[in-house]
Amino acid sequence: MLKEIFEHRSIRKYLDKAIPKEVMDEVLQAAIRASNTGNMQIYSIIVTSEKSLKQALAPAHFNQAMLSEAPTILTFCADFNRFQKWCDLRNANYAYDNILAFITASVDAIIAAQNACVEARHHGLGICYLGTALYNPDKIISVLNLPKGVVPVTAITIGYPAENPPLTDRLPSEAVVHYETYKDFSEEDINRIYSEKEEREDSKQFIKENNKETLAQVFTDIRYKKSDFEHFSKILIDTLKNQGFLK
Amino acid sequence: MLKEIFEHRSIRKYLDKAIPKEVMDEVLQAAIRASNTGNMQIYSIIVTSEKSLKQALAPAHFNQAMLSEAPTILTFCADFNRFQKWCDLRNANYAYDNILAFITASVDAIIAAQNACVEARHHGLGICYLGTALYNPDKIISVLNLPKGVVPVTAITIGYPAENPPLTDRLPSEAVVHYETYKDFSEEDINRIYSEKEEREDSKQFIKENNKETLAQVFTDIRYKKSDFEHFSKILIDTLKNQGFLK
Repeated sequence: MLKEIFEHRSIRKYLDKAIPKEVMDEVLQAAIRASNTGNMQIYSIIVTSEKSLKQALAPAHFNQAMLSEAPTILTFCADFNRFQKWCDLRNANYAYDNILAFITASVDAIIAAQNACVEARHHGLGICYLGTALYNPDKIISVLNLPKGVVPVTAITIGYPAENPPLTDRLPSEAVVHYETYKDFSEEDINRIYSEKEEREDSKQFIKENNKETLAQVFTDIRYKKSDFEHFSKILIDTLKNQGFLK
Repeated sequence: MLKEIFEHRSIRKYLDKAIPKEVMDEVLQAAIRASNTGNMQIYSIIVTSEKSLKQALAPAHFNQAMLSEAPTILTFCADFNRFQKWCDLRNANYAYDNILAFITASVDAIIAAQNACVEARHHGLGICYLGTALYNPDKIISVLNLPKGVVPVTAITIGYPAENPPLTDRLPSEAVVHYETYKDFSEEDINRIYSEKEEREDSKQFIKENNKETLAQVFTDIRYKKSDFEHFSKILIDTLKNQGFLK
């Protein structure tokens, strides 16, 4: 069992300490060694450490404090721009202006991101994923000057940890692992799978603090709201159109 | 530098040897420890080892030989089905029938997949990603009985290696790494970045074998064709509609 994987926890507080270039280079090389589609390497990584740029990125990530605290933000992008420029110069005709191209390039970007995260932990660094990259891709595109063909799909803060939080809980493996084919869930299955999570003291605290009846309502009414998902889906669709992945 | 990352190569030939349950369990646990969105764990992993099911999956992956040779195929899915069933039973109203929900769940699935791959290598196992999961999601949904809310986003073959291929080449890091903001590429940049790849003997061989003028044309005319990307994008869009992620 690789401790870099099994001891991972998201780090949201960082020491005021830059990442040495040789360490960052190994983290980036780990990303670059990742499996990718046909070895086209249809992704890019933006390494942002300048204070003013981190500040400019912060609103896209809802101004979470770790955006300014972390020495560096890595933004991982689906990227057909470079590949298409190469094709243009080599008399090659392509059609990567579609959803398959976008998702394929996104898979490349995320595999690379996770390699970087595992390697980062190997060097004593902490990371936290910023799922918000998908909420405000338009803002990130503007700050990072991403050309057509490039869409941010995830980002991480990275730096030396100033906290050591406990491992977070997980549902029992029967919640995510299916053998041979998918076994759908009965009401009884759902009750069993979620019982431990629902019985946790911190879950009860969340429900109380937020004046909700159930833990699921904390997710649907506060954290991952209907109105937000609908609003940010529209932005994502517009972004995919603007960046040339949807018509 | 983690050797599990830096020594990784895709394995397409496997020994006829099952993966012991305790080893597979650690690989799956590595996936489950992965960072995920709000700890909702909106992904699932289908572990397929039965011969008849692997054969049924093979056409979806264009009948590549490794589909039957590998002892097991893992299919990683974006999955809002379980979470939504929980919400339904807990009086919680959601809106995860949109593109943001799909991509968010896909990111979870792929981070989990890469953790499984790195842990697999730690146990001496080999893997190969099957990008084809995105080409024929409808076929995979049918074979694996995936309900609404579940879409396969990637798959891997996994087993003990029967080959030891060399590391594949990569473009120089300036091709994928941008400092601070994105620096777009000039014609000179593209020529420099791709020169080593274009000068490789195996690249020249690909061009010759396929009767093409340039290496880029091998990609656009043979491997990642316009007609295929357009055709399979339509299937992907239809699948997202059928599975409840697009209207």
